Amino acid sequence: MTWAVIATWKMAFHGTETAAGILENNGTAADAAVTGVSLVEDEPSFHSVGYGGRPDRTGHVVLDGGFMDGDTLHFGAVAALEGFRSPVNIARSLISGNANNFLVGAGAAAWAESHGFEKRDNLTEEAREIYEREKERLKELTAYDGHDTVCFLTLDHNGTLCAATSTSGLFMKEPGRVGDTPVPGSGFYADSECGAAAATGMGEEILKGALSYAAVFFMKEGYSAMEAAQKAVDELDAKLKKRNGSANAMSLITLAPDGSWGVGTNVDFTFSTADKEHGTQLWSAAKVNGKTVIKAYEKEI
Amino acid sequence: MTWAVIATWKMAFHGTETAAGILENNGTAADAAVTGVSLVEDEPSFHSVGYGGRPDRTGHVVLDGGFMDGDTLHFGAVAALEGFRSPVNIARSLISGNANNFLVGAGAAAWAESHGFEKRDNLTEEAREIYEREKERLKELTAYDGHDTVCFLTLDHNGTLCAATSTSGLFMKEPGRVGDTPVPGSGFYADSECGAAAATGMGEEILKGALSYAAVFFMKEGYSAMEAAQKAVDELDAKLKKRNGSANAMSLITLAPDGSWGVGTNVDFTFSTADKEHGTQLWSAAKVNGKTVIKAYEKEI
Repeated sequence: MTWAVIATWKMAFHGTETAAGILENNGTAADAAVTGVSLVEDEPSFHSVGYGGRPDRTGHVVLDGGFMDGDTLHFGAVAALEGFRSPVNIARSLISGNANNFLVGAGAAAWAESHGFEKRDNLTEEAREIYEREKERLKELTAYDGHDTVCFLTLDHNGTLCAATSTSGLFMKEPGRVGDTPVPGSGFYADSECGAAAATGMGEEILKGALSYAAVFFMKEGYSAMEAAQKAVDELDAKLKKRNGSANAMSLITLAPDGSWGVGTNVDFTFSTADKEHGTQLWSAAKVNGKTVIKAYEKEI
Repeated sequence: MTWAVIATWKMAFHGTETAAGILENNGTAADAAVTGVSLVEDEPSFHSVGYGGRPDRTGHVVLDGGFMDGDTLHFGAVAALEGFRSPVNIARSLISGNANNFLVGAGAAAWAESHGFEKRDNLTEEAREIYEREKERLKELTAYDGHDTVCFLTLDHNGTLCAATSTSGLFMKEPGRVGDTPVPGSGFYADSECGAAAATGMGEEILKGALSYAAVFFMKEGYSAMEAAQKAVDELDAKLKKRNGSANAMSLITLAPDGSWGVGTNVDFTFSTADKEHGTQLWSAAKVNGKTVIKAYEKEI
């Protein structure tokens, strides 16, 4: 069997290398995906995930994360979680039960505390200053930018596909706001027999089309990972434009059981991939004249 | 144009009659669906929704609800909400923004309070007594029964399809636990061009297959409402049994743009329907020798 990784945004490049190392050394898809996401969570210079993430309307950094095992379809997820280091690790730990796999708010925090997860106030000084500076100007907005969710899809030597995600959500979001990131079917989905997918962008748009499930469904129907990712994004983008006159940002990564990958997007998007043959690579994707163009990442983009 | 209603469980029969009256008098699908759900929320003798709903592990009645407009694909949702009368009405009110459509926990409660929604402690004396009696016996269980979500799908004279849902979730659930009910794509989905669907049963299973989205997708591909509902449930049921050895309870209602309806289930299930020609009817569905058998409701079931 082969192994493979795909991850959203160039902030995940280092994590992609680490995940690749885990898989090359016969580690599991679960360990690789969660470790990759965790590294992004811990890096304060990334402003949309974990430590250093942008606060909500009240100045609190509140996090969401998800995890799914493509063998069993079991998932774990947390949303609106404050005060803990790694939402993706807490999400992963929730996979074991037959119920209570998706916990939110104070309940999620209580669970994390009682299970010994490391606490951390994820509001950095830099994020606090930006919040203080921007909060007056952004008062009239409902939410602002910062929808760069980190997502990892991994395939291991056993043929297991996993998905893992983490985000601090929209800057200046309403307290308690949940986007697609912790929601199985929208923010992520993994089925080892069909494929895996994960999304980044405006969560409220992605939730309108169960975007990750849609892409995996297309892979099940015989579309390649690349075709499925683009078909899922393009169809939802077109539908939202037809119904509402516009569609907000959406990007989607996919990974097939054979290790081939795909990307669909309606904006400029960066991502990284890794496999044994090609090593770890950084890419950019963009919509040019209605077509998704993917090329090796260049600084100018 | 015609109008139509379908709703989960026989507890929704009275609400179905009321929703039918609204539609017959040229009311909107949104008003009909939300009014139908609200009536069930207010009835203390129904133990899995709203007032009189069963508490979580700590003795609190904590509610989830969702709403979706099939014309725009906009949705509103609340989860882990305590202390308010009608989660479905709060969910509906969240549809207006371009972001912050899904709020959970304390954030959802703060939003409801600041927008003037009626408060109510939904723990009835009867529910408190059952909780006190059962909590010792059920300590070792992660969650117990009580997954009878109320779901309404409605079609109005303008051809608009809407979905609305409400539940108190699993009895003895972990604090902060969220099932499928407030999750677009899993607990509900509505697209006026393709169809609408909503689910009841074990939320953690339904989330593994984005069940409502799957059924609407099948309708888009040309399956009837009945075929789509049964195909969605039967395929997820078979997949979960293959992967994990068992599949928990799942039932699904569907409504097509022409007013025809469908039901899929892997358990005994009751539901009601209404249209101009047939009036309001109560039905039972069951799996008999692997086939879904639907008939007029009889007391003996």
